[in-house]
Amino acid sequence: MLMAMLYGAKDLRLERGDDPVVGPGQVKIRFGAGGICGSDLSYYGKGRIGDFSLMQPLCLGHEVSGEVDEVGAGVTRVKKGDRVAINPNQPCRVCRTCKVGKGHICLAMNFYGSAALFPHIQGIFREVIVATEAQCFVVPQSCDFRIAAMAEPLAVALHAVRRAGSLVGKSVLVTGVGPIGSLLVLAAKRAGAAHIAVTDVADAALKRAEALGIDEAVNAVASPEKVEAWYANKGTFDVTFECSGNAAAIASAIQATASGGCVVQVGMLGVPTADIAVNRMVSREVDWLGAFRFDGEYGAAVHELASGAIDVSSLLTHSYKMSAANDAFLMAADRSQSMKVHLTF
Amino acid sequence: MLMAMLYGAKDLRLERGDDPVVGPGQVKIRFGAGGICGSDLSYYGKGRIGDFSLMQPLCLGHEVSGEVDEVGAGVTRVKKGDRVAINPNQPCRVCRTCKVGKGHICLAMNFYGSAALFPHIQGIFREVIVATEAQCFVVPQSCDFRIAAMAEPLAVALHAVRRAGSLVGKSVLVTGVGPIGSLLVLAAKRAGAAHIAVTDVADAALKRAEALGIDEAVNAVASPEKVEAWYANKGTFDVTFECSGNAAAIASAIQATASGGCVVQVGMLGVPTADIAVNRMVSREVDWLGAFRFDGEYGAAVHELASGAIDVSSLLTHSYKMSAANDAFLMAADRSQSMKVHLTF
Amino acid sequence: MLMAMLYGAKDLRLERGDDPVVGPGQVKIRFGAGGICGSDLSYYGKGRIGDFSLMQPLCLGHEVSGEVDEVGAGVTRVKKGDRVAINPNQPCRVCRTCKVGKGHICLAMNFYGSAALFPHIQGIFREVIVATEAQCFVVPQSCDFRIAAMAEPLAVALHAVRRAGSLVGKSVLVTGVGPIGSLLVLAAKRAGAAHIAVTDVADAALKRAEALGIDEAVNAVASPEKVEAWYANKGTFDVTFECSGNAAAIASAIQATASGGCVVQVGMLGVPTADIAVNRMVSREVDWLGAFRFDGEYGAAVHELASGAIDVSSLLTHSYKMSAANDAFLMAADRSQSMKVHLTF
Amino acid sequence: MLMAMLYGAKDLRLERGDDPVVGPGQVKIRFGAGGICGSDLSYYGKGRIGDFSLMQPLCLGHEVSGEVDEVGAGVTRVKKGDRVAINPNQPCRVCRTCKVGKGHICLAMNFYGSAALFPHIQGIFREVIVATEAQCFVVPQSCDFRIAAMAEPLAVALHAVRRAGSLVGKSVLVTGVGPIGSLLVLAAKRAGAAHIAVTDVADAALKRAEALGIDEAVNAVASPEKVEAWYANKGTFDVTFECSGNAAAIASAIQATASGGCVVQVGMLGVPTADIAVNRMVSREVDWLGAFRFDGEYGAAVHELASGAIDVSSLLTHSYKMSAANDAFLMAADRSQSMKVHLTF
Repeated sequence: MLMAMLYGAKDLRLERGDDPVVGPGQVKIRFGAGGICGSDLSYYGKGRIGDFSLMQPLCLGHEVSGEVDEVGAGVTRVKKGDRVAINPNQPCRVCRTCKVGKGHICLAMNFYGSAALFPHIQGIFREVIVATEAQCFVVPQSCDFRIAAMAEPLAVALHAVRRAGSLVGKSVLVTGVGPIGSLLVLAAKRAGAAHIAVTDVADAALKRAEALGIDEAVNAVASPEKVEAWYANKGTFDVTFECSGNAAAIASAIQATASGGCVVQVGMLGVPTADIAVNRMVSREVDWLGAFRFDGEYGAAVHELASGAIDVSSLLTHSYKMSAANDAFLMAADRSQSMKVHLTF
Repeated sequence: MLMAMLYGAKDLRLERGDDPVVGPGQVKIRFGAGGICGSDLSYYGKGRIGDFSLMQPLCLGHEVSGEVDEVGAGVTRVKKGDRVAINPNQPCRVCRTCKVGKGHICLAMNFYGSAALFPHIQGIFREVIVATEAQCFVVPQSCDFRIAAMAEPLAVALHAVRRAGSLVGKSVLVTGVGPIGSLLVLAAKRAGAAHIAVTDVADAALKRAEALGIDEAVNAVASPEKVEAWYANKGTFDVTFECSGNAAAIASAIQATASGGCVVQVGMLGVPTADIAVNRMVSREVDWLGAFRFDGEYGAAVHELASGAIDVSSLLTHSYKMSAANDAFLMAADRSQSMKVHLTF
Repeated sequence: MLMAMLYGAKDLRLERGDDPVVGPGQVKIRFGAGGICGSDLSYYGKGRIGDFSLMQPLCLGHEVSGEVDEVGAGVTRVKKGDRVAINPNQPCRVCRTCKVGKGHICLAMNFYGSAALFPHIQGIFREVIVATEAQCFVVPQSCDFRIAAMAEPLAVALHAVRRAGSLVGKSVLVTGVGPIGSLLVLAAKRAGAAHIAVTDVADAALKRAEALGIDEAVNAVASPEKVEAWYANKGTFDVTFECSGNAAAIASAIQATASGGCVVQVGMLGVPTADIAVNRMVSREVDWLGAFRFDGEYGAAVHELASGAIDVSSLLTHSYKMSAANDAFLMAADRSQSMKVHLTF
Repeated sequence: MLMAMLYGAKDLRLERGDDPVVGPGQVKIRFGAGGICGSDLSYYGKGRIGDFSLMQPLCLGHEVSGEVDEVGAGVTRVKKGDRVAINPNQPCRVCRTCKVGKGHICLAMNFYGSAALFPHIQGIFREVIVATEAQCFVVPQSCDFRIAAMAEPLAVALHAVRRAGSLVGKSVLVTGVGPIGSLLVLAAKRAGAAHIAVTDVADAALKRAEALGIDEAVNAVASPEKVEAWYANKGTFDVTFECSGNAAAIASAIQATASGGCVVQVGMLGVPTADIAVNRMVSREVDWLGAFRFDGEYGAAVHELASGAIDVSSLLTHSYKMSAANDAFLMAADRSQSMKVHLTF
């Protein structure tokens, strides 16, 4: 079987590996489609992400769907021929965080395609995948593999929405409308947000966001006065989803959020720290909530995609064969042209 | 000014009263439209509701909108000519329930058109109304008075939805699709419910509910096997909104709700008690939550209606002049013909 | 190794079984102490509990502690000689309830000593137990095995407390003060309850509860006027923990609970249904919450017991050798003499 | 009647004012005792706090108790001779924040002794006070006026605790143990915290905190290695109450808090911004929650103090006659000698 292995920055090689053996409770899956995520891009471009650097060749990929090829002993809910989305979360179940029911922030999470631990946890940009039955979520045969693969990033968005509490009738700001910010727009609309504004620094991204049916798109660099107007009278938005990871956007997000509201921080900061006006948060009781990965939201994401209730098709801008994986990564890095880029075999 | 006063069961008289004087912080409003609620109907039909009987003539009505005619000293957010929806909640602010921030279930609530206290709290089916500035919510001039008057029952629905927590991607059952059940359908759709089923015993109601865009409509008396199928494997729905107040429907709601789900009880029971299978609730941790009136949801309801985000127009089936109020009440009582009936001057 | 096997009502036999083999990720434990729970008592006395009847010999027991004898490959947090409490929860991880993060109400829970599934899940009243590493919680060597075994019922109490939200400064009622009700008293005190009242029908139980430091103990049968006084002005208690499973107590609990409060239902009803005054719940927004087993609270229970922060020693009334298990069960069934009865080898 | 008026930094004058008239729904109270708060101290020392400067003479004080002298028409729950604690919160009830039920962060809060609005809201360091009935909470005659006056700062602590959710069995860090931090220690103990650590930079404060029964007191400047040890393995404390308002302490608080935990920010920052390591919050889902003033917690605070359940007597270090108010303010500013300083007439 073929795997896309990263040996260092921009050094991605298609290699042949042994076909995996399927054990009890496990499922063997043929790769259908895999989305390139921001973390994949960072590993590809720089050989690292945040504090984690490549220490050995790493197979990237964690947004994946496929077709069931074989099931191990004891597997009852999935059968050969089923089309499945694969939940990449595999918490350890024994750390103190898992033991209090927060497995999605497990202290020793086994998450595909990551250099956080050594040996690295190999990812699933590979022809054949073995996963546990619990990781497999069946979708209809009519569901496009790329749509099914979107369950992972959509689950991230649904998790962030869940952290914010009810959005019905509320005004929402999304700062940064790349793939995750765009999915947040769709998820917030789905959750009943009454008014959605977005900011970005790229007009191309804002234009695509407008097509998703938002109320207001603002270029934060070109029109700072529009952003500042949101600060007046103790803030404007009930809930802000900060998806840019930009320090200025974070500071702005806190000011633009109204008394009693919250900022859900989804984006990872590109620099070590951000300057925060703490008293604005305290005196208005603006909560700042971290959102990381997802939990039960993966199943909800699969359902929303399979039923068409959340339609992500406009975000699927490009698709490449695995043999052209380098082109795929370059396209995914070009925000002016692409939104979500997928690989197939 | 004219008022519609109820003297006893089916004895409604149009009377002339003194024009009210507007004090500091108050607003005088000309009646625009008023919806007939189930409690109004019960007073009209039986001279009582639950434990409360008419002890003196009572002006009914609490779902009302109108036009501002005059504002008292110190009023700054509302001006003459504004079209407003009027929030009927007036908590006492001093009882222990108010003091812990739950004014909507105030132990001494001053709620329009109710015989719960004596002297009765007179309602607002009257030509001229005086309310506090805090009760008035401005809507656009283009907003139909009847739509604005729907803010009150829609706030009831939004409050019930808020009690249930996030609905995104969840399956929802609504038992009983009269006006409140229908608004729950619209509110649950707006809140991102993935699948909505409804039950009723009247085919006319089910037919109207289907037009609201639900997934499944079941006559609970004619097709009990469909309801029973929902009981299998520890329940089917994540959230059930029980709007019928029927004991059998309540028992059924608990069984149809899945492990870890909740039943939000909105309907008031027509008999003293219902038989409940307690262990089904305990072993599956199905929560049973009472939902009564509303709190901050009134403002959200006004916004949803004024923006058109929730479109209730298909529920507005009939409209009568106040002089034909008796006809209006008779029509409102006929579930096979009407949904929501309004009065105007 | 010896096991206590139940063959039918009151037919408990001490039998010899094969010593279990410890696999990877598993831990072999020598039995330290095991508490007799209400469900054990029901199986012993009637050969069944609720809908579940004995279909084959069943080893009872799920409140157990012991000493680690051997650890399997890959086990790192537990070592030979450690004293451990054993969490009996083993959710399936693949059912829809598990997949949304509610493993403690797993649809296919593998829970020790239960006839809910067939073949039955054998319990841990046995000389040697094999459990997973994740089930083992280390306690200090100085912690009495019986105290450690109380982690399971205390976790039930802490879970019920967590369901109720913050108790700080609140007034609490506990109906039924057997072992679980008594632990609820201790847990509610620990959580900052300002005032605790208890009801029971047995004076012996009330007397023991008074020794736990409560504010008010009422015999619900002998002094109904005291209970009824709690109904006035829309209820008295912010939170009620219903631990009796008695239909009259449940009806009373709802009436005694104040507007905006909640009843946490811990007791399982001994009859099919209870008559509930639904409108009292709706108009006061009294929530009725099921509490079943526990989740992350097991670890908290171990910590509270090991540190002595919650002192359960007064509840440990009797202890028997496994060879006298029949005497132990008879004593546990006699509420006038015993509170919690333990078995040891 | 006499009032303590501040004319500028350190220019406090005892002046005579007109006796206030008591209107309908109002209560006239003779001053019992009043605590000096950090905001009082800032106005006294610098003539300003944060962005708000003295624009006219200001009567300080908002932590006050007294004896009822006269009640206005319609007042039924308070009578002449009652000893009362006075809730200083008076939300406007009409702003959008009030309208969604969050009156304690009202956009136009009428809060005693504050220069936030102009004309300033005059405080209650005065011989005779007029308040509304809703502001008055009766305490037993045996309750010391100074204890009753502690209801206000204790309510701040209880509100912060409520924001953190259940503390039962959790480990808690309090950074900064002046009066508010010390009350947080007492409130967290009362709420069932399993382990409490505190940090401060003053050994005197740490010594007093130890007397409150904590588990660990660390001088953050003298023993940074102890603080840094808390950062290991993704943090140590389930909940941190940040009461210092020091930027370094805030940064440290976030690192010392465990995955899935929260930092409740109670202290106001003395400088415009703090440097925050955002990714530590995101990847561990550490929430940062602002806590400001209080809501229904005022009543709970009165109850806890009146019943003695929370014993604040060790915090009451000094008491001065109003005629020696300057001495009182100087003592309150000296953290090495005083904790909470009260004024009396």
